[in-house]
Amino acid sequence: MTSPSTGPSTGPSTSAAAGRRGRPGYDRETVLRRAVELFNERGYDATSTADLARELGVSKSAIFHHVSSKEELLASALDEALTALDAAVDAAGDAPAATTGGTSATERLRATVAESVRILVDHLPAVTLLLRVRGNSPVEQAALERRRVIDEKLARLVRDAADEGTLRTDLSSELISRLVFGTVNSLVEWYRPDGTLSPDDLAAQVTALAFDGLSTRD
Amino acid sequence: MTSPSTGPSTGPSTSAAAGRRGRPGYDRETVLRRAVELFNERGYDATSTADLARELGVSKSAIFHHVSSKEELLASALDEALTALDAAVDAAGDAPAATTGGTSATERLRATVAESVRILVDHLPAVTLLLRVRGNSPVEQAALERRRVIDEKLARLVRDAADEGTLRTDLSSELISRLVFGTVNSLVEWYRPDGTLSPDDLAAQVTALAFDGLSTRD
Repeated sequence: MTSPSTGPSTGPSTSAAAGRRGRPGYDRETVLRRAVELFNERGYDATSTADLARELGVSKSAIFHHVSSKEELLASALDEALTALDAAVDAAGDAPAATTGGTSATERLRATVAESVRILVDHLPAVTLLLRVRGNSPVEQAALERRRVIDEKLARLVRDAADEGTLRTDLSSELISRLVFGTVNSLVEWYRPDGTLSPDDLAAQVTALAFDGLSTRD
Repeated sequence: MTSPSTGPSTGPSTSAAAGRRGRPGYDRETVLRRAVELFNERGYDATSTADLARELGVSKSAIFHHVSSKEELLASALDEALTALDAAVDAAGDAPAATTGGTSATERLRATVAESVRILVDHLPAVTLLLRVRGNSPVEQAALERRRVIDEKLARLVRDAADEGTLRTDLSSELISRLVFGTVNSLVEWYRPDGTLSPDDLAAQVTALAFDGLSTRD
C-alpha cells in the first residue's frame, strides 16, 4: 500500500473550479503515475476510478478532467512501455551489419539485452503493468499484439546471431530468445531503483550471465 | 477463455440433491483445478464464486459442498505449489556434501534448477497462481512468506556453490539466485505442456543456458 498523498489535496468543488481554469489538484502525469502504481499493487481490474480518486484525495471529476476513462490511463502506460522497448529493438535492427563494416548481430543482441534492462528500470511501473496484461480487453489485446511484434524482432536478432556461429546450436533460437528476455522481464519482480545496483551495472551483469553463464570458464 | 465445460453439468436442484448424497456434479479436485484456471485467466480478485459456479454449470452451494470459501481454493493451490518446490529444495540441501563423498554444491544447484523446472511444468497452474500472488490477504502473505524461505534456501545453495570456486565471482550470489530462478519462473508465461519440448528437455536446456550461457565456448 502506498502511503496517503502528501501532495496538494483539493476537495471536489475546488478541483472542479481548478479544472475549469485548467489547473486541477494534480497534473495528468501525476494522475497517470499514481494510477499505474495502484494498478500494479491491486491489479488493473480490481482498481476503480473511485479507488484512484480516494488515493489521490480528489474527486472523480478531477480525474476525468485529464482522462476520459480508467482504460485511457492503462493505454497510456502500456504505450509508454511499448514505445520505449520498440525503439530499443529497432535501434539494434537498424544498425549497419558487420558485412558492411558495422557491428555483428551478436554485438547488437548483446546491446539490445543491456538496453532492454535499462528501459525496464527507467520505465519500471509501465513495464510491470505491461507484463501483467492478459488480453482482457481490446486495449490489452492491442498491447499484446505490439509485444508479439517486438518479440518477433528479438527472435530474429537471436537467429541472426546464431547464423554468425557465435551462439550455441544445441538450443533453438526461439528458446534462447524466450529465456533471455524472460530473465530480463523477471527483474520487475524484485528490482527496486533505490537499491545498491545501478541500472548500468544491472544491465552489464544480466548480459554477462546470459552470454557467458554462471560457471567459471575453464 | 476456456471453452464451456464438456464434463457432467448438473443444474442447481440436481447438484444440491447430489451434494446431500455426497456426490455432487464435480469432485473437489475438479472444482479446484477449474478454479485455478479461472484465477489465472481473470485474476483471483476479479473471479467470484458465482463466476466459478457459472463456469462449472453448477450452483454455488455445489461448490460450497467441497470448500468453505474461494480463499480455501486459493490456499489449496498455493500449498500444492509451495510443498512441491520446498521438497525439491530440501532434497538438494539434504544430499550428502562433497566433503563426505557426496555431490558438490554446484551439482546440487544444477539438480535443483532442473528439478524446479520439472515442478513448474508438473504444477503449472498452481505455480502460475503462486507467482502472481501480491500479498493482498493473510493467505497470500503466508504464501509469500513460504516463498521467501524457499528463496533463502536457494540463495544459500548458490553461495555454497560459489564457495567451491566453480561459479563466477563478478556477480553476487544473491543476483545469481534471483536471475537463475527468475528465468525458471518466466517459463509460466509461455511454456505449454502440449508443445514439442518435453519437461526433461526443457529442464536440461534451461540448466545448460544458466550455467554455460548462450555464447559458444572458446
